[in-house]
Amino acid sequence: MTETDDLVDLVVSTDELDSALTERSIRAVRDWIGAAIRGATGDTGDVLRAYAMASPADGSAMTFDGTTAGPERACLLNGAFGHTLDFDDTFSAFPLHPTTVVTPAALSAGELADADGEAFLRAYAVGVEVLHRVGKSVFPTQYGRGFHSTAAVGPIGAAATAAVVLDLDEDELRNAIGIAASSAGGLRKNFGTTTKPLHAGFAASAGLRAALLAREGATAHENALGGESGYGEAMAGEAFDPSELVGDELSGVADIALKLFASAHITHGSMEALRRLRERERLSPESVASMTATMHPGGREVLIHSDPDDALEAKFSIEFCLAAVLRSGKAGLEEFTDEYVTAPETRETMETVEAVYDEAAIEGLGRYGGRVTVETTDGETFEAAAAAPGSPDNPASESRLRGKFDSCVAPTSVDAEPLAAAIEGLAEGGSVSDVFDAL
Amino acid sequence: MTETDDLVDLVVSTDELDSALTERSIRAVRDWIGAAIRGATGDTGDVLRAYAMASPADGSAMTFDGTTAGPERACLLNGAFGHTLDFDDTFSAFPLHPTTVVTPAALSAGELADADGEAFLRAYAVGVEVLHRVGKSVFPTQYGRGFHSTAAVGPIGAAATAAVVLDLDEDELRNAIGIAASSAGGLRKNFGTTTKPLHAGFAASAGLRAALLAREGATAHENALGGESGYGEAMAGEAFDPSELVGDELSGVADIALKLFASAHITHGSMEALRRLRERERLSPESVASMTATMHPGGREVLIHSDPDDALEAKFSIEFCLAAVLRSGKAGLEEFTDEYVTAPETRETMETVEAVYDEAAIEGLGRYGGRVTVETTDGETFEAAAAAPGSPDNPASESRLRGKFDSCVAPTSVDAEPLAAAIEGLAEGGSVSDVFDAL
Repeated sequence: MTETDDLVDLVVSTDELDSALTERSIRAVRDWIGAAIRGATGDTGDVLRAYAMASPADGSAMTFDGTTAGPERACLLNGAFGHTLDFDDTFSAFPLHPTTVVTPAALSAGELADADGEAFLRAYAVGVEVLHRVGKSVFPTQYGRGFHSTAAVGPIGAAATAAVVLDLDEDELRNAIGIAASSAGGLRKNFGTTTKPLHAGFAASAGLRAALLAREGATAHENALGGESGYGEAMAGEAFDPSELVGDELSGVADIALKLFASAHITHGSMEALRRLRERERLSPESVASMTATMHPGGREVLIHSDPDDALEAKFSIEFCLAAVLRSGKAGLEEFTDEYVTAPETRETMETVEAVYDEAAIEGLGRYGGRVTVETTDGETFEAAAAAPGSPDNPASESRLRGKFDSCVAPTSVDAEPLAAAIEGLAEGGSVSDVFDAL
Repeated sequence: MTETDDLVDLVVSTDELDSALTERSIRAVRDWIGAAIRGATGDTGDVLRAYAMASPADGSAMTFDGTTAGPERACLLNGAFGHTLDFDDTFSAFPLHPTTVVTPAALSAGELADADGEAFLRAYAVGVEVLHRVGKSVFPTQYGRGFHSTAAVGPIGAAATAAVVLDLDEDELRNAIGIAASSAGGLRKNFGTTTKPLHAGFAASAGLRAALLAREGATAHENALGGESGYGEAMAGEAFDPSELVGDELSGVADIALKLFASAHITHGSMEALRRLRERERLSPESVASMTATMHPGGREVLIHSDPDDALEAKFSIEFCLAAVLRSGKAGLEEFTDEYVTAPETRETMETVEAVYDEAAIEGLGRYGGRVTVETTDGETFEAAAAAPGSPDNPASESRLRGKFDSCVAPTSVDAEPLAAAIEGLAEGGSVSDVFDAL
């Protein structure tokens, strides 16, 4: 078996998902749809709508701003909408945003093929698995060279997803993977710009395009992934590890970490620890004298805004993040606004925060875990530690996840209840069109 | 100035083209359009049409199969049509097909913006120049890693072209370059499949998309090309040479090598030498006992079909190529057919051919030059040497170039004469719509 055949085998041999995998998939999809609906309402949404209007690619596929487009264009818009808030999920093992790549492909292909919920969920899980495996096979070298994994692995996963929904045969699937591998690319250098969410849209769109082209007979090398001048070599040279592509187990979906705070992932463990302490000890900004957050040393490169000027910078400020949790008990999109960031109560609370980076102190909590120590004005000291909530190490409750979804959708014209029901119904006879009908 | 600014400076400072550059540009564009019109009629054309029908992206931009599509989709189809016969131009300095990437972008953007011929030609020359510079800045490392330069540099040149036609300002242009750099990719592994011509279409489409997005306000890093985790580092690591991006001179268009034979470029010098000998000495298959072609040693890896079974393999067979020239005086699309390749007269003549690889023997003729020695049945020996015709070292006559264009267009429903006139009229008050009106 070649490297490409390992993936082909994975795709064709995945039939029914077990109930745990189905449930995890639905939660991730619902979580992402909430973020995408909200993402479509912001500045990036405005840019993309203007682009779509100025350069028509008509069609019937739904986008999360409530309009329609051609299937590939819909993929591009939905992928970008879903990643624009950086509130969508990531893998826990390495930095790649899976759901915002494969879901748009599953949705647009699903509309084309009038897919039922079973095919949609299977396609989702397969695409996530392909991203997990291919990503690991080239990580960390690909990332270290400057590629954004979401963009530089994404098309291959999206192609696998679309191939399942479109019911491609093995040869078509092999070609789709090969065509998609020739669309893989995208630079970390563009983090912090519109291009970062576009990476997800480009990847989703390129993957669907590859599957559609393969379905009509377009060809690629039978092993575009492996061997000399293959994808692995081009992206990671000798560090390419094809053994990551092999296996019967689906572990990609289980590695997904949902985000419950609208900030950089590295802040999440200590935010969660503080959230628990606040509840247990009834803490408030008035009763706290100081807070110390202990995190993975990787946070030093991420948490660069100790004195953030606006909501975007605040995502990379542990000072703000802990202040928001202490003030509001959460840190969602309502807290990540310029007004909240610059409010005097927030600024005052931020001054009590100190960051410490110590890998040993967070052992067993995962890379995004954290430990927080609070001293009260009464002289008491409390301490708590947590893995990032929503991560594999610390699964989130249904009520918190549903709360995030509802708060994402609330300010839009979409009614959360029937939409959530349509997404949850995918495993029980529902279809992709039910989801779009609920938009 | 950053690396990206070097390109921005190039684009904004290029105003009027001189007459030599204009003439070269027109010839390359005409040559490519001929190949694209013909390319749209073959198998790959059928695949792409089926794909376009199955996945509508409606619009008004013309494609070379005589239909219309959205501007980006039209770019994709036209770029692939233009590269599908491998009869379109390349750079002489390194392997990248420039005209099939930038012309589709100039045409589709030109339809959107109702561009005049002056803007079209300036956009063409600027895009070719960007491809030449960026390509050299990462060659040969990018290529050696497995990337196809046409795909992995292409979007940046197409973005520059589209930016000129759409008249983007400097910030928009900088963003377009950055967005395009995040769409660069594509594997040499896929050579010999549909994905190879698709690379040109993907690149053209991604470049136009980047320019359209930037026009509406999408952003990218201000220096996506340079520095840590920039395009150069991601594609070539420490071998990235930013000095290639700098300069006032436009030398890209002058480095274009047009193809006059429908075979691998490495065969062209010895074919041309034989063509001259045949004419001068009135050679025929009956009068020739043996032919020896001396070529660059790089030909060993390319000319792998000494006994080709069909027209595709014949492109990589020096035995066939010399036999065709001796039989027909040329080797265009009429000779590269399965019937001609398998004809007994052809097979008999092929047996007289021997290949020799010797770099010293072709010194001064360029990499694609060749030397041919012919022994006649009368015992006479003739020898001739030539650079590849249509290359910078051996410019082709207008009549030969026009003959290639006419022969490409002849079997289609397009009338060559008004189309050629519309293309040639671009420098004299013509417009992009004149070209499409002539299709």
